[in-house]
Amino acid sequence: MSTPSLLILPGDGIGPEVMAEVRRIIDWYGTKRDLSFDVSEDLVGGAAYDVHGAPLSDDTMAKAQDVDAVLLGAVGGPKYDSLDFSVKPERGLLRLRKEMDLFANLRPAQCFDALADFSSLKTEVVSGLDIMIVRELTSGVYFGEPRGIFEEGNERVGINTQRYTESEIERVARNAFELAMKRDRKLCSMEKANVMESGVLWREVVTRVGADYPEVELSHMYADAGAMQLTRWPKQFDVIVTDNLFGDMLSDLAAMLTGSLGMLPSASLGAPMANGRPKALYEPVHGSAPDIAGQGKANPIACILSFAMALRYSFDQGDEASRLEAAVERVLAAGHRTADLLGEEGRAPLSTSEMGDAILAEL
Amino acid sequence: MSTPSLLILPGDGIGPEVMAEVRRIIDWYGTKRDLSFDVSEDLVGGAAYDVHGAPLSDDTMAKAQDVDAVLLGAVGGPKYDSLDFSVKPERGLLRLRKEMDLFANLRPAQCFDALADFSSLKTEVVSGLDIMIVRELTSGVYFGEPRGIFEEGNERVGINTQRYTESEIERVARNAFELAMKRDRKLCSMEKANVMESGVLWREVVTRVGADYPEVELSHMYADAGAMQLTRWPKQFDVIVTDNLFGDMLSDLAAMLTGSLGMLPSASLGAPMANGRPKALYEPVHGSAPDIAGQGKANPIACILSFAMALRYSFDQGDEASRLEAAVERVLAAGHRTADLLGEEGRAPLSTSEMGDAILAEL
Ligand SMILES: CC(C)[C@H](C(=O)O)[C@@H](O)C(=O)O
Ligand SMILES: CC(C)[C@H](C(=O)O)[C@@H](O)C(=O)O
Repeated sequence: MSTPSLLILPGDGIGPEVMAEVRRIIDWYGTKRDLSFDVSEDLVGGAAYDVHGAPLSDDTMAKAQDVDAVLLGAVGGPKYDSLDFSVKPERGLLRLRKEMDLFANLRPAQCFDALADFSSLKTEVVSGLDIMIVRELTSGVYFGEPRGIFEEGNERVGINTQRYTESEIERVARNAFELAMKRDRKLCSMEKANVMESGVLWREVVTRVGADYPEVELSHMYADAGAMQLTRWPKQFDVIVTDNLFGDMLSDLAAMLTGSLGMLPSASLGAPMANGRPKALYEPVHGSAPDIAGQGKANPIACILSFAMALRYSFDQGDEASRLEAAVERVLAAGHRTADLLGEEGRAPLSTSEMGDAILAEL
Repeated sequence: MSTPSLLILPGDGIGPEVMAEVRRIIDWYGTKRDLSFDVSEDLVGGAAYDVHGAPLSDDTMAKAQDVDAVLLGAVGGPKYDSLDFSVKPERGLLRLRKEMDLFANLRPAQCFDALADFSSLKTEVVSGLDIMIVRELTSGVYFGEPRGIFEEGNERVGINTQRYTESEIERVARNAFELAMKRDRKLCSMEKANVMESGVLWREVVTRVGADYPEVELSHMYADAGAMQLTRWPKQFDVIVTDNLFGDMLSDLAAMLTGSLGMLPSASLGAPMANGRPKALYEPVHGSAPDIAGQGKANPIACILSFAMALRYSFDQGDEASRLEAAVERVLAAGHRTADLLGEEGRAPLSTSEMGDAILAEL
């Protein structure tokens, strides 16, 4: 098999800094584990807008379609806040998701033992937490038409369309059931079937797919109750499947519960390519954090763990992924902390690259 | 002024039990404070469906339009889960909101000192918490057309429409600014303007209305970040204004943070009627809790505090509202607890009516 290819899109804010540490990890795998990647780098988000006048050029889009996996840092920043909707940094990310058809967004919400105290929740509520949220990523209100701001009488009206076909629901549900089979075999589907017909269809299709997975215990919850239950006792969940907009909020909420926000990776997967690998994009859950960008303060772990997810889901290197994850856990257990992981304590934080050093040393 | 009128709709599940305690409180105000109400009672939700084949009869709808305020218990239950969407218990509630045009849903998220330990969040994160969420309640994806499940090619598609006009946004924003003026003069507006055009219009209109309230510090947050920030450090907020669907999730989340879910009331307000009072419906935030219905275990406090909100917002009796709220706080401080307010402790809980007794005794 030829050398697997990786397209790196550092993006905006802290994206470039954290990605620099990922590149060192990638290099380590090449030299020490004989696991080389053909790495190229390009622009996305505000960084792409500055050069091309668009948050993702057609050329970069074509490259993303061509590689085995894309690794993205973060997009957005106050500099771009006043840009027109159509060229905002986020549109670059949304274009990648849509055109690569990355319909299943896997967001693990895991509480690192060494960081449980850091959560705003009580330690016993979150310690040991390990849930997986599967969010539909290419449809729903993010992409439905009609959309826009229109004149109506003597005022304007803002319109977006929530829209799900049976096949769109089915494929992401199947993905979630498959994941549940590899975990604790519990799947909870969340929608607002009491208010939205799209939720009625969602519930019906998920239930139908569930017939193919009799070993998985399937439950349904309204999304508002889901937000409550995640807050009350998140350990009741194993895998959660939900739509694009509910998934956006619920996965961010779940991430914040863990207290490990700067630590959490994500994978966005599509259909298998000719070589059998799924179309895939990996990115940290955190944003571009413009307030600390360029200061070497950012925590690179979420981005490094996103690369671990790439090893597992794109390159069938589950053992190497576990090796990297274990190294991160040991680094944390040893007390190494970037600024975001220090509370009131007076300790001096590690810089972004010192955290990279510590992880490399553990590897 | 003639005796103010109240329509009581106990609804389903624990609705009737908790409402029975509210009626005792109402009677107390009549006898002891010379504050009488002309009270009538009717059906809503599953209870109405059982009798009329619809979750709200036209007759009840007309009565609701006619009274000074409506007090609702809760709707829904497993018995009605398989009903067609159009006659589900929730549709009765949604019809009331829509036809009475109750566009501003006020949901205080308050942490009762005596219950702070009961939250899944750390005590220092929630103790003293007192925020107000203003949720738009008559538009957005809850009511937008087109909606439904349609055939498309050889599959079905579920569609709902998110839709906001400038005037719909403006009136709820104005309401939120007015509330902020009476509180800490901080308002945070939440949407997904980075993804949805309806959110772009929302942000623009809220900003424009803000020009009339220069004393109020206005900020904007994406709704996913809002969910995170509410979880991380809810005390950063004073008043939050958001749309119908985001408000559904964010207000439930905020309620759960406090650990006082069984305690939280809500008010849904519309335009002023001929007598100057706003159209109004008051209801607890909790649901119908079918698992404990009919057992005398339910906590009546949220419903009782909903009546306190009615005193304040419909009947200009802010002092009497405060009297009732203070009585509830004293009851809690004295250690009285219904089952939902007891953790692992072996104490015997108060029944629904014993809690009513305790509050009446404090009054
Ligand atoms: C940046 C933004 C467009 C994006 C989203 O809303 O999907 C982000 O919040 C996320 O969850 O990945
Ligand atoms: C019962 C349901 C229709 C309702 C809603 O979604 O608005 C409830 O969750 C609420 O928040 O009042």
